[in-house]
Amino acid sequence: MSLSLKPGFSFGGVLQKLYPEENLTRQEIILENSDEYWMAQALSKSMENGCAANPNPSVGCVVVLNNKIISSGCTERWGGKHAERVAFESLKVGDLEGTTVYVTLEPCTHVGKQPPCVELFRNRGISKVVIGSEDPNPIVSGNGIQQLKEMGIECKVGVLKTEVQAWLSPFFIQQRNHRPLIALKWAQSLDGCFADDHDGWQWISGIHSRKYTHWLRQKYDAILIGVGTLLNDFPSLDVREIQNQYKRDPLKIIYDPFGKIFQCTEQEQAILTEKTFKLGTKQIILIGTQVLLDEKEKNNKWFQFLKNNENFILQKINDNSENKMTNIIVESLKCKEIDEFLGRPLQSILIEGGPRLLSLFLQEKNYDVLHVFIAPFFLGGEKNKLFSKKQRALIPYIFRDVSKVERMKIVVQERLGNDILLEMVQEN
Amino acid sequence: MSLSLKPGFSFGGVLQKLYPEENLTRQEIILENSDEYWMAQALSKSMENGCAANPNPSVGCVVVLNNKIISSGCTERWGGKHAERVAFESLKVGDLEGTTVYVTLEPCTHVGKQPPCVELFRNRGISKVVIGSEDPNPIVSGNGIQQLKEMGIECKVGVLKTEVQAWLSPFFIQQRNHRPLIALKWAQSLDGCFADDHDGWQWISGIHSRKYTHWLRQKYDAILIGVGTLLNDFPSLDVREIQNQYKRDPLKIIYDPFGKIFQCTEQEQAILTEKTFKLGTKQIILIGTQVLLDEKEKNNKWFQFLKNNENFILQKINDNSENKMTNIIVESLKCKEIDEFLGRPLQSILIEGGPRLLSLFLQEKNYDVLHVFIAPFFLGGEKNKLFSKKQRALIPYIFRDVSKVERMKIVVQERLGNDILLEMVQEN
Repeated sequence: MSLSLKPGFSFGGVLQKLYPEENLTRQEIILENSDEYWMAQALSKSMENGCAANPNPSVGCVVVLNNKIISSGCTERWGGKHAERVAFESLKVGDLEGTTVYVTLEPCTHVGKQPPCVELFRNRGISKVVIGSEDPNPIVSGNGIQQLKEMGIECKVGVLKTEVQAWLSPFFIQQRNHRPLIALKWAQSLDGCFADDHDGWQWISGIHSRKYTHWLRQKYDAILIGVGTLLNDFPSLDVREIQNQYKRDPLKIIYDPFGKIFQCTEQEQAILTEKTFKLGTKQIILIGTQVLLDEKEKNNKWFQFLKNNENFILQKINDNSENKMTNIIVESLKCKEIDEFLGRPLQSILIEGGPRLLSLFLQEKNYDVLHVFIAPFFLGGEKNKLFSKKQRALIPYIFRDVSKVERMKIVVQERLGNDILLEMVQEN
Repeated sequence: MSLSLKPGFSFGGVLQKLYPEENLTRQEIILENSDEYWMAQALSKSMENGCAANPNPSVGCVVVLNNKIISSGCTERWGGKHAERVAFESLKVGDLEGTTVYVTLEPCTHVGKQPPCVELFRNRGISKVVIGSEDPNPIVSGNGIQQLKEMGIECKVGVLKTEVQAWLSPFFIQQRNHRPLIALKWAQSLDGCFADDHDGWQWISGIHSRKYTHWLRQKYDAILIGVGTLLNDFPSLDVREIQNQYKRDPLKIIYDPFGKIFQCTEQEQAILTEKTFKLGTKQIILIGTQVLLDEKEKNNKWFQFLKNNENFILQKINDNSENKMTNIIVESLKCKEIDEFLGRPLQSILIEGGPRLLSLFLQEKNYDVLHVFIAPFFLGGEKNKLFSKKQRALIPYIFRDVSKVERMKIVVQERLGNDILLEMVQEN
């Protein structure tokens, strides 16, 4: 039935029936048994192992015969089998005869940790291969499709391409732009406050939003916060409240250009050791070059502890005044040492605050996606918000004009408990 | 299929598949041919004539036999037939035999502009009557159901009660609370700005949100704005861009306690006459008692024009320092003169701004519903926002604490173009 009932006031409560349909942004409807339908199954399958395949793309594959899935697969943990291999290996010789294979990403053609997948398609009698997106890796891109065609297999490319690329965006951005994906995340009141103006920390958003945050962190290779947030909130920055087989804690990165962290009181050191710097979790402290040169620091016990602990890297900020501030931060993280420290390339960073650091990334338009939680109340505060007066004094902020402002593009709105989650990207 | 595809980034793009279902706020699914299903059809039918029945409730009725609707009706324009009469009159004697009748509101038992509907149900062989909500009118409430039972008809009451009451909320609030429904409406940036800090007016929200606003205005009996907004924006406050048979313009109310409007320049007077005060549309100017006593004003030509024009009422604000400021405003509008001026009881008011007036209503918790449009960008301004520094100085505003703040309850989130519409009510 077309009437969608929600509890609520008059129009709102029944908006979807009464308001002219063409004015609402609707989600697409996919017809059963269409190529989009089966590709959606493959995309769904591709998420089965979460981000365990990182930095490899998590690909999904379904094999369809007579409008039924006869086998399916998802890329295994990094170094493990690719989706096509998983899907095909449970089938007997001849089982692929006459099938259509749906795979979210173009099959690979090069020998990496696994032999090339495209060879799995040879002489199996497959009727058609439907591919979500070409591989952005220049070694593969187009070659997989070319080789399939040379095998005499019909190929269709680009089905649910946007959705596939969205799911694999850290991989695509790394391949195409040679940098990690940058996501900004915050929770705010309706008037843009992160907290009230009193001392002490209190949650803005509800329990559902916080749970979602933990779930979100698993996707990212690293979380970045400013040293101010670190010393105010002592956040754990780990993944809690979520249980699944592919749970993982991201690398923690602290942006601390002036080495404030080395000036901590002993009490602060104790709390940090207990919470954010828990034993065994890897951390990077991004500091200015000057800090390391300072003789005074070298005798500081706490500094020596952080410097000599194998769970820490004190990474110098690669200062270059010609570059944007936030580019300097990102560039400082692009190095072999950090990739080795993480055990794989750093493909995505979730920046969680505080408001000053987030304002800077927003101001310099240095982000790929925003995760914004809006809690439905007003705080009316001045201190803890994006683009506050204080921040406008500190960063090169041009006072905005509605006609010139950069609008973001909303890609998702979702209710989490009594909060709203918006996901936004830059308007193209 | 369960995978809901939206273009977007990784989690967001496929949130509904991957994120644990139980954490998302889902809309209810209604089973086909259930009582809820047919009541939803009746509710849908009840909206057919828009708000033409005001101040009567717009009721819907469907008659079901063997899982098919054999007749249906919606309340006609005020004074016209009620929904049950419309639904039944197209049926022949005996056609109602064995049917189930779904009606959103309890059938009436009193003679008003129409004979009592409950009598239409007598001796027609109806098997069952399903009622959305009891009538809040004490003359009717429960009596209709009682009389149906005495006729030997099975009754079921309360099916989709929340949705029915939401659609009829102005009627319910008037019956139960003897006051009009108060709605606040505004469009804001992500950081709560209504406009930038430059002079001149520019739209914050996109074309879809504005279109929705026009559509929304039809529901309300009156729009209220402050004199500051009037003289800044010269808004038309009418219903444009929407075509349908029940289009109607709301009454315009200007809140102007100090009679600023009488001090307009001739140029401002000309623009007002052209735009907001267009000939033939009814207006109320809410002014302080002191203003009318001021001898100076009485010789003012513009004042005399407004005072003697039959399209205007200069309504004195019923000042009472013991009451809340916003209650004084609402109380001043509850009088016979205004009901007569409008031609029916004033059942609902949409307050459209500016930020100072809206802050006051929010601060004093004097609202039933909020319609908030959020445009996805930041302005970083100081002047045009709710609870700005200036407003906090003017109104008795206690600085907020997250733990004590009043959270609103979100009842609707909807995407309109590239804006988000939130509809919120007070948390009970």
